[in-house]
Formats: sequence, C-alpha cells, structure tokens
Amino acid sequence: MPPTDRFVSETRFPVRYAETDAMGIVHHASFIVYLEEARSHYARARNADYATLIEMGYYLTVAEIHARYAAPARYGQVLVARCWIDDLKSRSVTFGYEIADSQTKLIHVTGQSHHICITHQGQVARIPQAWVTALSGQHGADSTE
Amino acid sequence: MPPTDRFVSETRFPVRYAETDAMGIVHHASFIVYLEEARSHYARARNADYATLIEMGYYLTVAEIHARYAAPARYGQVLVARCWIDDLKSRSVTFGYEIADSQTKLIHVTGQSHHICITHQGQVARIPQAWVTALSGQHGADSTE
Amino acid sequence: MPPTDRFVSETRFPVRYAETDAMGIVHHASFIVYLEEARSHYARARNADYATLIEMGYYLTVAEIHARYAAPARYGQVLVARCWIDDLKSRSVTFGYEIADSQTKLIHVTGQSHHICITHQGQVARIPQAWVTALSGQHGADSTE
Amino acid sequence: MPPTDRFVSETRFPVRYAETDAMGIVHHASFIVYLEEARSHYARARNADYATLIEMGYYLTVAEIHARYAAPARYGQVLVARCWIDDLKSRSVTFGYEIADSQTKLIHVTGQSHHICITHQGQVARIPQAWVTALSGQHGADSTE
Repeated sequence: MPPTDRFVSETRFPVRYAETDAMGIVHHASFIVYLEEARSHYARARNADYATLIEMGYYLTVAEIHARYAAPARYGQVLVARCWIDDLKSRSVTFGYEIADSQTKLIHVTGQSHHICITHQGQVARIPQAWVTALSGQHGADSTE
Repeated sequence: MPPTDRFVSETRFPVRYAETDAMGIVHHASFIVYLEEARSHYARARNADYATLIEMGYYLTVAEIHARYAAPARYGQVLVARCWIDDLKSRSVTFGYEIADSQTKLIHVTGQSHHICITHQGQVARIPQAWVTALSGQHGADSTE
Repeated sequence: MPPTDRFVSETRFPVRYAETDAMGIVHHASFIVYLEEARSHYARARNADYATLIEMGYYLTVAEIHARYAAPARYGQVLVARCWIDDLKSRSVTFGYEIADSQTKLIHVTGQSHHICITHQGQVARIPQAWVTALSGQHGADSTE
Repeated sequence: MPPTDRFVSETRFPVRYAETDAMGIVHHASFIVYLEEARSHYARARNADYATLIEMGYYLTVAEIHARYAAPARYGQVLVARCWIDDLKSRSVTFGYEIADSQTKLIHVTGQSHHICITHQGQVARIPQAWVTALSGQHGADSTE
C-alpha cells in the first residue's frame, strides 16, 4: 500500500540538448532517465538517499517500466518530474510518475516502475526497515507484504 | 492484427560499456534504446527503412512503452534483439520484443511499444500504404482499422 | 578574445544513476553531456538562450571537444559545472569548462569545446550580433575575427 | 610506441535514432560512445576482450578524450569505426580513431583517447603482460615505458 501521507516529490530540470532526437523532441528513452531521477529525488526528499541504500548492501532493481507519452517536450523547456509511491511491500516497491512542463503545466509523460529489493549478490531481500520507514514518511512504521 | 507471416526480425550487437551502470549491469534505459534499434532493424529487414518513412513526411511517434526486466545483462555479452508486429492498424502499430543473450539464449527483457503515425506537423495520419505493405510483408496487402 | 568581464556561469545538478557505468563511476561520455549543459546554462545566464539562437535560424555546431578526466565522480554527488568563453570570433566560439564536486570542490573534469556558427542549411555564418552582445555581456559590444 | 604491425580494427553499426539530436544529426556525445565501442572492438579483434582485463582486476580508465567533428552523420547511415594504438606504454595506452560512412567513405569524426591502467582499487598499475602482448599483436612482445 502507498504511504498514508500520499507524499509527492517534485524536482525541476531543463531539457538537455543531448536528450532530444531528430524529431526535434525529447527522445522517449530520455524520459525513462527522468523517471529514475524523479525517484532518486523522491528518496532524497524523504531523507532516504538511494546512495545510502547501496552502501547498506542493497539495490532496488528495475523489474518493470511502463510509460505513456502524452505530449512531446522540447529543448528550452524546464520540466517538473513528480514521483510518489503507488505500492510498498516488504520486498518490492512501485513508483508512480508524472512529468510536466514547469510553466504551462502540460503533462508530457506518466509512468510507473516496479522494483525488487536485492542484495549486491543478486538475492531478493526485504527492504531494510530504516529505508521503509523513511520512504513511507512514517517514523517507526511497519510495512509487511 | 499482426502480419500473417508472423515475421520476427533479429539483430545482434555487443553491449557497449557506456550502456552499463554502477550496478555492473546494462541500465534499464539502455534496453529502451535496444528496443528502438530492434524495430529499426525490423523495418530494414522488411525493406521499409524508417529513414524512408521520415522522407515521405511521417513519423511513428512513441505513445507507450512497456518493458519487463527478467535478467540482468553485462558488458562482454552479445545480445540478440527480436522484434515483431503485435498489431497493425491504419494509424498505429504495436511492436513486440524479446532481448536475449546470443549464446546462452537467456531472455533478458521483453517489451511492447505502441506507435501512432503522425505527419512532420504533428497530425495523426494513416500509415502510407507502401509502408503498411512492406511492414506486413504482404505485397498489395490491405490493413484497415 | 574572451569577454572582458571574464564571466563564469555555474550550474548544479545531481549525478543521475543512468550516467554511471560498471566501474561505479560517471561514464566519460556523460561528462560530455554535462559540458553541453554547462554551456546551455552559460547562455541562459547571459540572457542568450540557445533555443532562441535556433529560432533565429542558426546552430553552434560542435567542431572539436577536448576533455581531461582528473578524478572519478559517483552517484550521490551534486556537481557544479562552470563554463566561460575562452575565445569569441565572428563565426566561432570556444568555451572552457570545469566540473567539480559542489561540496568538496574537487575538480573532476576540465574541458574545451570549439563551435562554428552555421545556418539550418549548414552554411557557415556570422554569429548574430544580438547573440554576440549577449554572450559577451557587453551591450553594444563588437566582436570581429 | 604503436604496435609494429599498425593494426587497425574496424567495426560497423547503424546509427541509432536515440543517438540523433534536434539538429537532425548524430549528437557529438554519441560519437564518444562510438569511440569506446571502436576500442572495445579493437581489443576483441586482438583476442584481448576488455571484459577479460576487468576480470583480471584492472581497468583502463579514460584520462583524456579529444574528438574533431568533420561532417555530420544521420539516422539511416551505417558507420565504420576504425581504431588503432597510437602509443602503448607500461601503464598507459593511447588509441586513435576514425569514424566514417560505410558507403561514401566520408570521414565524420577523428579522435584520440588516453587511458591509464588502474586496479579496481584505483591504483595506477602496469598493464598485465598478457594484455600488452595481445593488444600489440606480438606474442611474447615486451613493451616498457
């Protein structure tokens, strides 16, 4: 289940020229990188920096990605990438996303990604409790599958 | 509906070091680029080079991407990217994909992408008949929505 | 010659996970994208958005890139990318760069890029005067080769 | 000094759409990835797969990159990336490159990259003799600084 506070993180960045393609728009794979940056930022905004999870010996590996492209984005735009948790289980987490223009509010892309917690040796593992607590914004919270 | 011959294209390429990430594996966004290269190759294998469609004044814009990551891939592997058409309508096309190791046959990623035919001005348009015919491998074939 | 005010722009951004490689560090090609973002920001900081130059019918095409990698950067770092103009001529411009850690001040990469002004048809052209003026921070300034 | 046989490796690949930018051409950072793929292929062509060097506990870290962009490349082209060794020392190696169109032979980019051999702990080290021998194409060859 999602965190009870339904927290939505928000990070802003300009489109980089390298992220565009010959159609003159942001390439669809660049948006997949934006989704990742959005969830990196979600974790930082929750004081749960992903770099710290890695230091603890874990990864949140990507099991599935789904993105819908509603409107093209272009160089010159500043984008807002929003991220929230759709589902948090003991061994997995699903993030939801929305990427919009920071000025016009036009939504460019929506998406979801599903992640499994694994050790650095590749074994499925429980997400460390400190990280679950931080991610869900509930100090002392318990999240079981 | 898919082409009656159920043609599956296949292209091979080595993992590039730039495509890996700090987990030591191919980054999930790199696979989205592989899917694109797989459908580029599908078109070439059908004598329907995407560059030609662009010259005719059209694009197949990406409306939706879905990828499932079954097993990590690493630098040093040669991958095989298979692509086929799951659905071909008058204004849209859905490609299916499978990316495997060329030696072990292990499947790394499966996916689907949905595309809309648009003009260079961004208007939804019918896929040119010559291209439908080529894509579906049926000379003189008719594909209506 | 460089602008008389020796203006140095500065933009900050976190390392994105996608930008790392299997060595666990930021891939060297990702830094080339950072250099581009640094000069995009230089132009914005001078009220000379590159998107505007493109609308005027010009590009600053990359003729040469030179980068020296002094120290590896990692996911979790926030970088500062500094950019300045080393040389500004009627038809070309050379940017200088320095990319450092925002906290430790450690310099990761230094570089230079040389650009030629071309029209959208690919012909070498004079950089529009309005843009020269803005880039050099001298309203009414004259820059001849 | 360079290998006495002046071996030049050659690998071919189509431009990927993701590698283009809004100018309609291959983005300059994509060529940096092509250079890397060219030297990966050089090693494979010498039976000195870089993946093997990594398994031995070493990396060839990038210390410097220099690229000159002579002519733009576009989606639809098949490129040839040539790579050779300009200099091979006990602890470092310099590769030279040329990327051309496979049909017209037009040269798009030339470049050089300088690499230092380091251990996985980041210490400068001698390039393992087996690898020097393979890279230089001289079985039993000796290469000292």
